[in-house]
Amino acid sequence: MEKHKEILNKELKNRISKLDTPPKLKEAMAYSLDAGGKRIRPLLLFAVIDSFGKDTAAGLSTAAALEMIHTYSLIHDDLPSMDNDDVRRGKLTNHKVFGEGMAILAGDGLLTFAFQLISGDQYLQDGQKVELLHLLSKCAGPEGMVAGQVADMEGENKELGIDELEYIHTHKTGKLLTFSVLAGATIGGADRRQMESFEQFSHHLGLSFQISDDILDVTGDEELMGKPVGSDTGRHKSTYPSVLTLKGAKEHLSLHIKEAKKALGQTNLNTEILSRITDLIADRTH
Amino acid sequence: MEKHKEILNKELKNRISKLDTPPKLKEAMAYSLDAGGKRIRPLLLFAVIDSFGKDTAAGLSTAAALEMIHTYSLIHDDLPSMDNDDVRRGKLTNHKVFGEGMAILAGDGLLTFAFQLISGDQYLQDGQKVELLHLLSKCAGPEGMVAGQVADMEGENKELGIDELEYIHTHKTGKLLTFSVLAGATIGGADRRQMESFEQFSHHLGLSFQISDDILDVTGDEELMGKPVGSDTGRHKSTYPSVLTLKGAKEHLSLHIKEAKKALGQTNLNTEILSRITDLIADRTH
Repeated sequence: MEKHKEILNKELKNRISKLDTPPKLKEAMAYSLDAGGKRIRPLLLFAVIDSFGKDTAAGLSTAAALEMIHTYSLIHDDLPSMDNDDVRRGKLTNHKVFGEGMAILAGDGLLTFAFQLISGDQYLQDGQKVELLHLLSKCAGPEGMVAGQVADMEGENKELGIDELEYIHTHKTGKLLTFSVLAGATIGGADRRQMESFEQFSHHLGLSFQISDDILDVTGDEELMGKPVGSDTGRHKSTYPSVLTLKGAKEHLSLHIKEAKKALGQTNLNTEILSRITDLIADRTH
Repeated sequence: MEKHKEILNKELKNRISKLDTPPKLKEAMAYSLDAGGKRIRPLLLFAVIDSFGKDTAAGLSTAAALEMIHTYSLIHDDLPSMDNDDVRRGKLTNHKVFGEGMAILAGDGLLTFAFQLISGDQYLQDGQKVELLHLLSKCAGPEGMVAGQVADMEGENKELGIDELEYIHTHKTGKLLTFSVLAGATIGGADRRQMESFEQFSHHLGLSFQISDDILDVTGDEELMGKPVGSDTGRHKSTYPSVLTLKGAKEHLSLHIKEAKKALGQTNLNTEILSRITDLIADRTH
Protein backbone atom coordinates (compact mmCIF):
# COMPACT_ATOMS: atom_id res chain seq x y z
CA MET A 1 0.00 0.00 0.00
CA GLU A 2 2.92 2.36 0.69
CA LYS A 3 4.13 1.77 -2.86
CA HIS A 4 0.69 2.65 -4.23
CA LYS A 5 0.58 5.80 -2.16
CA GLU A 6 3.91 6.90 -3.64
CA ILE A 7 2.77 6.18 -7.20
CA LEU A 8 -0.41 8.15 -6.58
CA ASN A 9 1.39 11.13 -5.04
CA LYS A 10 3.73 11.24 -8.02
CA GLU A 11 0.79 11.06 -10.42
CA LEU A 12 -1.02 13.92 -8.64
CA LYS A 13 2.07 16.13 -8.73
CA ASN A 14 2.72 15.28 -12.36
CA ARG A 15 -0.83 15.92 -13.55
CA ILE A 16 -1.05 19.29 -11.79
CA SER A 17 2.39 20.44 -12.95
CA LYS A 18 1.47 19.70 -16.59
CA LEU A 19 -1.70 21.80 -16.46
CA ASP A 20 -1.85 24.69 -18.91
CA THR A 21 -3.21 27.22 -16.40
CA PRO A 22 -2.16 30.33 -14.41
CA PRO A 23 0.66 29.45 -11.95
CA LYS A 24 -1.30 30.76 -8.96
CA LEU A 25 -4.16 28.35 -9.59
CA LYS A 26 -1.76 25.46 -10.01
CA GLU A 27 -0.11 26.40 -6.72
CA ALA A 28 -3.44 26.60 -4.89
CA MET A 29 -4.60 23.24 -6.26
CA ALA A 30 -1.27 21.55 -5.46
CA TYR A 31 -1.14 23.05 -1.96
CA SER A 32 -4.23 21.23 -0.74
CA LEU A 33 -3.48 18.03 -2.68
CA ASP A 34 -0.05 17.91 -1.01
CA ALA A 35 -1.39 18.57 2.46
CA GLY A 36 -0.52 15.11 3.75
CA GLY A 37 -3.79 13.27 3.37
CA LYS A 38 -3.97 9.58 4.20
CA ARG A 39 -5.19 8.77 0.67
CA ILE A 40 -7.73 6.34 2.10
CA ARG A 41 -10.07 6.54 -0.90
CA PRO A 42 -7.45 5.82 -3.59
CA LEU A 43 -5.98 3.02 -1.44
CA LEU A 44 -9.42 1.47 -1.09
CA LEU A 45 -9.85 1.62 -4.85
CA PHE A 46 -6.50 -0.05 -5.46
CA ALA A 47 -7.21 -2.71 -2.84
CA VAL A 48 -10.53 -3.59 -4.50
CA ILE A 49 -8.91 -3.90 -7.94
CA ASP A 50 -6.18 -6.01 -6.36
CA SER A 51 -8.77 -8.34 -4.79
CA PHE A 52 -9.70 -9.41 -8.36
CA GLY A 53 -6.02 -10.13 -9.09
CA LYS A 54 -6.03 -7.32 -11.69
CA ASP A 55 -3.29 -4.76 -12.41
CA THR A 56 -3.94 -1.65 -10.32
CA ALA A 57 -2.43 0.62 -13.03
CA ALA A 58 -5.86 0.71 -14.69
CA GLY A 59 -7.12 2.53 -11.59
CA LEU A 60 -4.49 5.28 -11.42
CA SER A 61 -6.47 8.05 -13.15
CA THR A 62 -9.58 7.20 -11.16
CA ALA A 63 -7.55 7.20 -7.93
CA ALA A 64 -6.14 10.63 -8.76
CA ALA A 65 -9.63 11.88 -9.66
CA LEU A 66 -10.97 10.60 -6.34
CA GLU A 67 -8.34 12.43 -4.35
CA MET A 68 -9.05 15.62 -6.32
CA ILE A 69 -12.76 15.42 -5.56
CA HIS A 70 -12.06 14.71 -1.91
CA THR A 71 -9.63 17.63 -1.73
CA TYR A 72 -12.03 20.05 -3.45
CA SER A 73 -14.70 19.12 -0.91
CA LEU A 74 -12.33 19.90 1.97
CA ILE A 75 -11.33 23.27 0.48
CA HIS A 76 -14.94 24.38 0.04
CA ASP A 77 -15.97 22.87 3.38
CA ASP A 78 -13.31 24.92 5.21
CA LEU A 79 -14.47 28.27 3.76
CA PRO A 80 -15.65 31.00 6.15
CA SER A 81 -19.24 30.68 4.88
CA MET A 82 -19.18 26.93 5.60
CA ASP A 83 -17.21 25.44 8.52
CA ASN A 84 -14.80 28.39 8.76
CA ASP A 85 -11.72 26.31 9.60
CA ASP A 86 -8.27 27.89 9.65
CA VAL A 87 -6.29 24.69 10.05
CA ARG A 88 -6.54 21.30 8.36
CA ARG A 89 -4.10 18.40 8.75
CA GLY A 90 -1.84 20.74 10.71
CA LYS A 91 -1.54 23.27 7.86
CA LEU A 92 -3.34 26.52 7.15
CA THR A 93 -6.46 25.94 5.07
CA ASN A 94 -6.48 26.94 1.41
CA HIS A 95 -8.36 30.22 1.79
CA LYS A 96 -6.09 31.31 4.67
CA VAL A 97 -3.12 31.06 2.27
CA PHE A 98 -4.59 32.00 -1.12
CA GLY A 99 -7.70 34.01 -0.22
CA GLU A 100 -11.35 33.01 -0.49
CA GLY A 101 -11.84 33.69 -4.20
CA MET A 102 -8.84 31.60 -5.21
CA ALA A 103 -9.83 28.81 -2.81
CA ILE A 104 -13.28 28.58 -4.38
CA LEU A 105 -11.69 28.44 -7.84
CA ALA A 106 -9.07 25.88 -6.77
CA GLY A 107 -11.96 23.69 -5.58
CA ASP A 108 -13.90 24.22 -8.82
CA GLY A 109 -10.74 23.40 -10.75
CA LEU A 110 -10.03 20.17 -8.87
CA LEU A 111 -13.64 19.04 -9.19
CA THR A 112 -13.73 19.59 -12.94
CA PHE A 113 -10.23 18.21 -13.53
CA ALA A 114 -11.28 14.93 -11.93
CA PHE A 115 -13.68 14.35 -14.84
CA GLN A 116 -10.96 15.31 -17.33
CA LEU A 117 -8.62 12.70 -15.86
CA ILE A 118 -11.02 9.77 -16.10
CA SER A 119 -12.45 10.71 -19.50
CA GLY A 120 -8.90 11.09 -20.88
CA ASP A 121 -7.48 7.87 -19.38
CA GLN A 122 -5.53 5.62 -21.73
CA TYR A 123 -6.16 2.23 -20.08
CA LEU A 124 -9.94 2.21 -19.66
CA GLN A 125 -12.52 1.30 -22.30
CA ASP A 126 -15.18 3.86 -23.27
CA GLY A 127 -17.90 1.79 -21.59
CA GLN A 128 -15.95 1.66 -18.34
CA LYS A 129 -15.25 5.39 -18.47
CA VAL A 130 -18.93 6.23 -18.89
CA GLU A 131 -19.84 3.94 -16.00
CA LEU A 132 -17.16 5.48 -13.76
CA LEU A 133 -18.03 9.08 -14.70
CA HIS A 134 -21.73 8.49 -14.12
CA LEU A 135 -21.13 6.87 -10.75
CA LEU A 136 -18.69 9.61 -9.73
CA SER A 137 -21.08 12.42 -10.59
CA LYS A 138 -23.92 10.71 -8.71
CA CYS A 139 -21.74 10.06 -5.66
CA ALA A 140 -20.09 13.50 -5.59
CA GLY A 141 -22.97 15.68 -6.79
CA PRO A 142 -26.39 16.88 -5.61
CA GLU A 143 -27.56 13.30 -4.95
CA GLY A 144 -24.38 12.44 -3.09
CA MET A 145 -21.69 14.39 -1.29
CA VAL A 146 -23.16 17.84 -1.98
CA ALA A 147 -26.52 16.69 -0.54
CA GLY A 148 -24.72 15.56 2.62
CA GLN A 149 -22.92 18.86 2.89
CA VAL A 150 -26.21 20.76 2.61
CA ALA A 151 -27.88 18.53 5.22
CA ASP A 152 -24.87 19.01 7.49
CA MET A 153 -25.04 22.79 7.15
CA GLU A 154 -28.79 22.81 7.79
CA GLY A 155 -28.36 20.53 10.81
CA GLU A 156 -26.01 22.86 12.68
CA ASN A 157 -27.32 24.10 16.01
CA LYS A 158 -30.10 21.52 15.89
CA GLU A 159 -30.58 18.33 17.88
CA LEU A 160 -30.48 15.57 15.27
CA GLY A 161 -31.84 12.05 15.56
CA ILE A 162 -29.86 9.03 14.47
CA ASP A 163 -31.65 8.88 11.07
CA GLU A 164 -30.78 12.47 10.22
CA LEU A 165 -27.21 11.91 11.35
CA GLU A 166 -26.93 8.82 9.16
CA TYR A 167 -28.35 10.72 6.16
CA ILE A 168 -25.65 13.35 6.57
CA HIS A 169 -22.86 10.84 6.86
CA THR A 170 -23.92 8.32 4.24
CA HIS A 171 -23.96 11.28 1.86
CA LYS A 172 -21.23 13.63 3.05
CA THR A 173 -18.49 11.04 3.48
CA GLY A 174 -20.15 7.74 2.64
CA LYS A 175 -20.95 8.29 -1.04
CA LEU A 176 -17.37 9.03 -2.04
CA LEU A 177 -16.14 5.97 -0.13
CA THR A 178 -18.83 4.01 -1.96
CA PHE A 179 -17.47 5.35 -5.23
CA SER A 180 -13.95 4.26 -4.27
CA VAL A 181 -15.13 0.71 -3.70
CA LEU A 182 -17.55 0.41 -6.62
CA ALA A 183 -15.14 2.05 -9.06
CA GLY A 184 -12.57 -0.56 -8.03
CA ALA A 185 -15.17 -3.29 -8.57
CA THR A 186 -16.06 -1.87 -12.00
CA ILE A 187 -12.42 -1.75 -13.06
CA GLY A 188 -11.81 -5.19 -11.54
CA GLY A 189 -14.70 -6.63 -13.52
CA ALA A 190 -17.19 -7.55 -10.76
CA ASP A 191 -20.29 -9.59 -11.56
CA ARG A 192 -23.70 -8.51 -10.24
CA ARG A 193 -23.50 -10.46 -7.00
CA GLN A 194 -20.01 -9.20 -6.20
CA MET A 195 -21.15 -5.64 -6.95
CA GLU A 196 -23.97 -6.01 -4.40
CA SER A 197 -21.59 -7.34 -1.75
CA PHE A 198 -19.23 -4.43 -2.38
CA GLU A 199 -22.15 -2.04 -2.05
CA GLN A 200 -22.94 -3.53 1.36
CA PHE A 201 -19.28 -3.37 2.31
CA SER A 202 -18.94 0.27 1.36
CA HIS A 203 -22.12 1.22 3.22
CA HIS A 204 -20.87 -0.22 6.50
CA LEU A 205 -17.31 0.95 5.93
CA GLY A 206 -18.53 4.50 5.34
CA LEU A 207 -20.51 4.57 8.57
CA SER A 208 -17.61 3.00 10.49
CA PHE A 209 -15.36 5.70 9.12
CA GLN A 210 -17.65 8.48 10.26
CA ILE A 211 -18.39 7.02 13.68
CA SER A 212 -14.68 6.58 14.38
CA ASP A 213 -14.17 10.17 13.20
CA ASP A 214 -16.75 11.39 15.69
CA ILE A 215 -15.23 9.28 18.48
CA LEU A 216 -11.80 10.75 17.69
CA ASP A 217 -13.24 14.24 17.98
CA VAL A 218 -13.93 13.36 21.63
CA THR A 219 -11.00 11.12 22.53
CA GLY A 220 -8.31 11.97 19.96
CA ASP A 221 -4.82 13.42 20.30
CA GLU A 222 -4.77 16.97 18.94
CA GLU A 223 -1.23 16.72 17.66
CA LEU A 224 -1.79 13.48 15.76
CA MET A 225 -5.00 14.79 14.25
CA GLY A 226 -3.65 18.17 13.18
CA LYS A 227 -6.83 19.93 14.28
CA PRO A 228 -8.41 20.86 17.61
CA VAL A 229 -10.17 18.09 19.52
CA GLY A 230 -13.81 18.80 20.35
CA SER A 231 -14.33 21.15 17.39
CA ASP A 232 -17.63 19.48 16.42
CA THR A 233 -19.02 19.84 19.92
CA GLY A 234 -17.83 23.45 20.03
CA ARG A 235 -19.70 24.08 16.79
CA HIS A 236 -22.85 22.46 18.24
CA LYS A 237 -22.86 19.68 15.67
CA SER A 238 -24.65 16.47 16.49
CA THR A 239 -22.24 13.53 16.55
CA TYR A 240 -22.55 9.80 17.20
CA PRO A 241 -21.22 10.15 20.79
CA SER A 242 -23.59 13.06 21.44
CA VAL A 243 -26.59 11.09 20.15
CA LEU A 244 -25.67 7.57 21.33
CA THR A 245 -23.17 8.30 24.19
CA LEU A 246 -19.51 7.36 23.72
CA LYS A 247 -20.15 3.75 24.75
CA GLY A 248 -23.10 3.47 22.37
CA ALA A 249 -21.04 4.95 19.53
CA LYS A 250 -18.29 2.40 20.09
CA GLU A 251 -20.80 -0.46 20.02
CA HIS A 252 -22.31 0.96 16.83
CA LEU A 253 -18.83 1.07 15.31
CA SER A 254 -18.13 -2.60 16.16
CA LEU A 255 -21.41 -3.61 14.59
CA HIS A 256 -20.68 -1.86 11.30
CA ILE A 257 -17.12 -3.19 11.16
CA LYS A 258 -18.52 -6.71 11.60
CA GLU A 259 -21.09 -6.21 8.84
CA ALA A 260 -18.45 -4.74 6.53
CA LYS A 261 -16.28 -7.84 6.93
CA LYS A 262 -19.24 -10.14 6.43
CA ALA A 263 -19.95 -8.44 3.09
CA LEU A 264 -16.30 -8.81 2.10
CA GLY A 265 -16.51 -12.54 2.76
CA GLN A 266 -19.44 -12.81 0.33
CA THR A 267 -17.40 -11.58 -2.64
CA ASN A 268 -15.37 -14.82 -2.78
CA LEU A 269 -12.30 -12.74 -3.61
CA ASN A 270 -8.94 -12.31 -1.93
CA THR A 271 -10.01 -9.47 0.38
CA GLU A 272 -7.25 -9.71 3.01
CA ILE A 273 -5.96 -6.17 2.39
CA LEU A 274 -9.49 -4.75 2.41
CA SER A 275 -10.12 -6.47 5.70
CA ARG A 276 -6.98 -4.90 7.15
CA ILE A 277 -8.01 -1.44 5.89
CA THR A 278 -11.34 -1.96 7.65
CA ASP A 279 -9.55 -2.74 10.93
CA LEU A 280 -7.30 0.30 10.52
CA ILE A 281 -10.37 2.52 10.26
CA ALA A 282 -11.76 1.14 13.51
CA ASP A 283 -8.48 1.55 15.37
CA ARG A 284 -7.15 4.74 13.85
CA THR A 285 -5.71 7.48 16.01
CA HIS A 286 -6.02 10.35 13.50
CA MET B 1 -35.21 28.53 -31.80
CA GLU B 2 -38.05 29.62 -29.48
CA LYS B 3 -39.34 26.05 -29.53
CA HIS B 4 -35.92 24.71 -28.57
CA LYS B 5 -35.67 27.20 -25.74
CA GLU B 6 -39.00 25.98 -24.39
CA ILE B 7 -37.97 22.33 -24.63
CA LEU B 8 -34.71 23.13 -22.84
CA ASN B 9 -36.41 25.10 -20.05
CA LYS B 10 -38.80 22.21 -19.49
CA GLU B 11 -35.91 19.73 -19.40
CA LEU B 12 -34.00 21.84 -16.86
CA LYS B 13 -37.03 22.11 -14.59
CA ASN B 14 -37.78 18.44 -14.93
CA ARG B 15 -34.23 17.25 -14.20
CA ILE B 16 -33.90 19.45 -11.12
CA SER B 17 -37.33 18.53 -9.74
CA LYS B 18 -36.50 14.81 -10.00
CA LEU B 19 -33.27 15.15 -8.01
CA ASP B 20 -33.11 13.11 -4.83
CA THR B 21 -31.64 15.90 -2.69
CA PRO B 22 -32.57 18.31 0.14
CA PRO B 23 -35.36 20.71 -1.00
CA LYS B 24 -33.31 23.79 -0.15
CA LEU B 25 -30.50 22.78 -2.51
CA LYS B 26 -33.01 22.03 -5.27
CA GLU B 27 -34.55 25.45 -4.75
CA ALA B 28 -31.17 27.22 -4.87
CA MET B 29 -30.13 25.36 -8.04
CA ALA B 30 -33.48 26.02 -9.74
CA TYR B 31 -33.50 29.69 -8.73
CA SER B 32 -30.44 30.58 -10.77
CA LEU B 33 -31.31 28.24 -13.65
CA ASP B 34 -34.71 29.96 -13.93
CA ALA B 35 -33.26 33.44 -13.77
CA GLY B 36 -34.17 34.32 -17.36
CA GLY B 37 -30.96 33.59 -19.21
CA LYS B 38 -30.87 33.91 -22.96
CA ARG B 39 -29.77 30.24 -23.33
CA ILE B 40 -27.26 31.29 -25.98
CA ARG B 41 -24.99 28.28 -25.44
CA PRO B 42 -27.69 25.59 -25.72
CA LEU B 43 -29.18 27.36 -28.75
CA LEU B 44 -25.77 27.41 -30.41
CA LEU B 45 -25.41 23.70 -29.75
CA PHE B 46 -28.83 22.95 -31.24
CA ALA B 47 -28.12 25.16 -34.26
CA VAL B 48 -24.87 23.33 -34.99
CA ILE B 49 -26.57 19.91 -34.79
CA ASP B 50 -29.32 21.27 -37.03
CA SER B 51 -26.76 22.42 -39.60
CA PHE B 52 -25.96 18.74 -40.19
CA GLY B 53 -29.65 18.00 -40.72
CA LYS B 54 -29.63 15.80 -37.58
CA ASP B 55 -32.30 15.50 -34.90
CA THR B 56 -31.53 17.99 -32.11
CA ALA B 57 -33.03 15.65 -29.47
CA ALA B 58 -29.65 13.93 -29.23
CA GLY B 59 -28.25 17.22 -27.87
CA LEU B 60 -30.82 17.83 -25.12
CA SER B 61 -28.79 16.45 -22.18
CA THR B 62 -25.67 18.22 -23.36
CA ALA B 63 -27.63 21.46 -23.76
CA ALA B 64 -28.97 21.14 -20.22
CA ALA B 65 -25.47 20.34 -18.94
CA LEU B 66 -24.08 23.42 -20.69
CA GLU B 67 -26.63 25.71 -19.08
CA MET B 68 -25.88 24.17 -15.68
CA ILE B 69 -22.16 24.79 -16.05
CA HIS B 70 -22.78 28.33 -17.25
CA THR B 71 -25.14 28.98 -14.32
CA TYR B 72 -22.72 27.53 -11.75
CA SER B 73 -20.02 29.86 -13.08
CA LEU B 74 -22.30 32.88 -12.65
CA ILE B 75 -23.25 31.89 -9.09
CA HIS B 76 -19.62 31.50 -8.00
CA ASP B 77 -18.56 34.58 -9.98
CA ASP B 78 -21.13 36.73 -8.14
CA LEU B 79 -19.92 35.72 -4.66
CA PRO B 80 -18.62 38.43 -2.29
CA SER B 81 -15.07 37.05 -2.51
CA MET B 82 -15.20 37.25 -6.33
CA ASP B 83 -17.14 40.00 -8.17
CA ASN B 84 -19.48 40.70 -5.23
CA ASP B 85 -22.58 41.31 -7.32
CA ASP B 86 -25.99 41.68 -5.68
CA VAL B 87 -28.06 41.67 -8.86
CA ARG B 88 -27.94 39.54 -12.00
CA ARG B 89 -30.44 39.60 -14.86
CA GLY B 90 -32.58 41.93 -12.75
CA LYS B 91 -32.87 39.45 -9.86
CA LEU B 92 -31.00 39.13 -6.59
CA THR B 93 -27.95 36.91 -6.95
CA ASN B 94 -27.99 33.41 -5.46
CA HIS B 95 -26.01 34.19 -2.31
CA LYS B 96 -28.19 37.23 -1.56
CA VAL B 97 -31.22 34.92 -1.40
CA PHE B 98 -29.80 31.64 -0.06
CA GLY B 99 -26.63 32.72 1.75
CA GLU B 100 -23.02 32.24 0.70
CA GLY B 101 -22.59 28.64 1.87
CA MET B 102 -25.67 27.43 0.00
CA ALA B 103 -24.70 29.42 -3.11
CA ILE B 104 -21.29 27.73 -3.21
CA LEU B 105 -22.95 24.33 -2.84
CA ALA B 106 -25.61 25.11 -5.46
CA GLY B 107 -22.75 25.91 -7.85
CA ASP B 108 -20.88 22.73 -6.92
CA GLY B 109 -24.10 20.77 -7.40
CA LEU B 110 -24.84 22.23 -10.84
CA LEU B 111 -21.27 21.67 -12.01
CA THR B 112 -21.25 18.03 -10.94
CA PHE B 113 -24.79 17.34 -12.15
CA ALA B 114 -23.79 18.45 -15.65
CA PHE B 115 -21.49 15.42 -15.87
CA GLN B 116 -24.23 13.16 -14.53
CA LEU B 117 -26.60 14.33 -17.26
CA ILE B 118 -24.27 13.64 -20.18
CA SER B 119 -22.91 10.35 -18.83
CA GLY B 120 -26.47 9.13 -18.17
CA ASP B 121 -27.92 10.21 -21.52
CA GLN B 122 -29.99 7.62 -23.38
CA TYR B 123 -29.42 8.77 -26.98
CA LEU B 124 -25.63 9.11 -27.14
CA GLN B 125 -23.12 6.30 -27.76
CA ASP B 126 -20.43 5.62 -25.15
CA GLY B 127 -17.71 6.93 -27.49
CA GLN B 128 -19.60 10.19 -28.00
CA LYS B 129 -20.21 10.58 -24.29
CA VAL B 130 -16.51 10.18 -23.49
CA GLU B 131 -15.61 12.72 -26.16
CA LEU B 132 -18.19 15.22 -24.89
CA LEU B 133 -17.25 14.75 -21.22
CA HIS B 134 -13.56 15.14 -21.96
CA LEU B 135 -14.13 18.27 -24.01
CA LEU B 136 -16.47 19.72 -21.39
CA SER B 137 -14.03 19.19 -18.53
CA LYS B 138 -11.21 20.75 -20.56
CA CYS B 139 -13.33 23.74 -21.57
CA ALA B 140 -14.88 24.32 -18.12
CA GLY B 141 -11.97 23.35 -15.86
CA PRO B 142 -8.50 24.59 -14.91
CA GLU B 143 -7.41 24.73 -18.56
CA GLY B 144 -10.57 26.53 -19.62
CA MET B 145 -13.16 28.66 -17.87
CA VAL B 146 -11.62 28.40 -14.39
CA ALA B 147 -8.26 29.58 -15.80
CA GLY B 148 -10.02 32.60 -17.30
CA GLN B 149 -11.74 33.37 -14.04
CA VAL B 150 -8.40 33.27 -12.20
CA ALA B 151 -6.73 35.51 -14.79
CA ASP B 152 -9.67 37.90 -14.57
CA MET B 153 -9.41 38.07 -10.78
CA GLU B 154 -5.66 38.60 -10.92
CA GLY B 155 -6.06 41.29 -13.59
CA GLU B 156 -8.31 43.53 -11.49
CA ASN B 157 -6.91 46.96 -10.73
CA LYS B 158 -4.18 46.41 -13.34
CA GLU B 159 -3.75 47.96 -16.78
CA LEU B 160 -3.98 45.01 -19.14
CA GLY B 161 -2.71 44.78 -22.71
CA ILE B 162 -4.79 43.33 -25.54
CA ASP B 163 -3.08 39.90 -25.23
CA GLU B 164 -3.88 39.56 -21.54
CA LEU B 165 -7.43 40.71 -22.16
CA GLU B 166 -7.83 38.12 -24.92
CA TYR B 167 -6.43 35.37 -22.68
CA ILE B 168 -9.06 36.20 -20.07
CA HIS B 169 -11.91 36.22 -22.54
CA THR B 170 -10.97 33.25 -24.69
CA HIS B 171 -10.91 31.29 -21.43
CA LYS B 172 -13.55 32.86 -19.20
CA THR B 173 -16.36 33.01 -21.77
CA GLY B 174 -14.79 31.68 -24.97
CA LYS B 175 -14.07 28.10 -23.94
CA LEU B 176 -17.65 27.28 -22.98
CA LEU B 177 -18.91 28.80 -26.23
CA THR B 178 -16.31 26.65 -27.99
CA PHE B 179 -17.71 23.63 -26.19
CA SER B 180 -21.25 24.54 -27.32
CA VAL B 181 -20.14 24.59 -30.93
CA LEU B 182 -17.79 21.58 -30.90
CA ALA B 183 -20.21 19.46 -28.87
CA GLY B 184 -22.81 20.17 -31.54
CA ALA B 185 -20.31 19.21 -34.24
CA THR B 186 -19.46 15.99 -32.37
CA ILE B 187 -23.12 15.04 -32.04
CA GLY B 188 -23.78 16.10 -35.65
CA GLY B 189 -20.96 13.86 -36.87
CA ALA B 190 -18.45 16.40 -38.21
CA ASP B 191 -15.42 15.25 -40.18
CA ARG B 192 -11.96 16.62 -39.39
CA ARG B 193 -12.14 19.58 -41.75
CA GLN B 194 -15.57 20.63 -40.54
CA MET B 195 -14.35 20.35 -36.95
CA GLU B 196 -11.49 22.75 -37.72
CA SER B 197 -13.86 25.24 -39.35
CA PHE B 198 -16.16 25.08 -36.32
CA GLU B 199 -13.15 25.66 -34.06
CA GLN B 200 -12.33 28.82 -36.02
CA PHE B 201 -15.96 29.88 -35.91
CA SER B 202 -16.23 29.43 -32.16
CA HIS B 203 -12.98 31.33 -31.54
CA HIS B 204 -14.21 34.42 -33.40
CA LEU B 205 -17.74 34.09 -32.08
CA GLY B 206 -16.43 33.97 -28.51
CA LEU B 207 -14.38 37.11 -28.93
CA SER B 208 -17.28 38.88 -30.67
CA PHE B 209 -19.49 37.95 -27.77
CA GLN B 210 -17.10 39.40 -25.22
CA ILE B 211 -16.32 42.58 -27.15
CA SER B 212 -20.03 43.29 -27.59
CA ASP B 213 -20.47 42.62 -23.86
CA ASP B 214 -17.80 45.20 -23.06
CA ILE B 215 -19.31 47.71 -25.49
CA LEU B 216 -22.73 47.23 -23.85
CA ASP B 217 -21.17 47.94 -20.47
CA VAL B 218 -20.42 51.43 -21.85
CA THR B 219 -23.39 52.09 -24.13
CA GLY B 220 -26.11 49.71 -22.88
CA ASP B 221 -29.52 50.37 -21.41
CA GLU B 222 -29.52 49.52 -17.70
CA GLU B 223 -33.12 48.33 -17.69
CA LEU B 224 -32.68 45.97 -20.65
CA MET B 225 -29.46 44.57 -19.23
CA GLY B 226 -30.76 44.00 -15.70
CA LYS B 227 -27.52 45.24 -14.17
CA PRO B 228 -25.83 48.63 -13.75
CA VAL B 229 -24.08 50.07 -16.80
CA GLY B 230 -20.40 50.90 -16.28
CA SER B 231 -19.90 48.27 -13.55
CA ASP B 232 -16.68 46.98 -15.17
CA THR B 233 -15.20 50.48 -15.32
CA GLY B 234 -16.28 51.12 -11.73
CA ARG B 235 -14.48 47.95 -10.69
CA HIS B 236 -11.33 49.07 -12.56
CA LYS B 237 -11.48 46.15 -14.98
CA SER B 238 -9.76 46.49 -18.32
CA THR B 239 -12.25 46.20 -21.19
CA TYR B 240 -12.02 46.35 -24.98
CA PRO B 241 -13.27 49.96 -25.09
CA SER B 242 -10.81 50.96 -22.36
CA VAL B 243 -7.89 49.34 -24.20
CA LEU B 244 -8.87 50.05 -27.83
CA THR B 245 -11.29 53.03 -27.45
CA LEU B 246 -15.00 52.55 -28.21
CA LYS B 247 -14.42 53.06 -31.94
CA GLY B 248 -11.53 50.58 -31.97
CA ALA B 249 -13.60 48.01 -30.06
CA LYS B 250 -16.43 48.30 -32.60
CA GLU B 251 -13.98 47.77 -35.47
CA HIS B 252 -12.50 44.77 -33.67
CA LEU B 253 -16.01 43.37 -33.28
CA SER B 254 -16.80 43.72 -37.01
CA LEU B 255 -13.58 41.95 -37.88
CA HIS B 256 -14.33 38.94 -35.67
CA ILE B 257 -17.93 38.71 -36.90
CA LYS B 258 -16.61 38.63 -40.47
CA GLU B 259 -14.08 35.90 -39.64
CA ALA B 260 -16.75 33.88 -37.82
CA LYS B 261 -18.97 33.92 -40.89
CA LYS B 262 -16.09 33.03 -43.17
CA ALA B 263 -15.41 29.93 -41.05
CA LEU B 264 -19.10 29.00 -41.19
CA GLY B 265 -18.97 29.12 -44.98
CA GLN B 266 -16.10 26.62 -45.00
CA THR B 267 -18.18 23.91 -43.31
CA ASN B 268 -20.30 23.37 -46.45
CA LEU B 269 -23.32 22.91 -44.22
CA ASN B 270 -26.62 24.73 -43.94
CA THR B 271 -25.44 27.39 -41.47
CA GLU B 272 -28.11 30.02 -41.99
CA ILE B 273 -29.34 29.92 -38.39
CA LEU B 274 -25.77 30.03 -37.07
CA SER B 275 -25.12 33.06 -39.22
CA ARG B 276 -28.18 34.78 -37.78
CA ILE B 277 -27.09 33.98 -34.21
CA THR B 278 -23.73 35.56 -35.05
CA ASP B 279 -25.47 38.74 -36.22
CA LEU B 280 -27.65 38.81 -33.12
CA ILE B 281 -24.53 38.78 -30.96
CA ALA B 282 -23.10 41.78 -32.80
CA ASP B 283 -26.33 43.76 -32.58
CA ARG B 284 -27.61 42.74 -29.18
CA THR B 285 -28.93 45.29 -26.72
CA HIS B 286 -28.57 43.17 -23.56
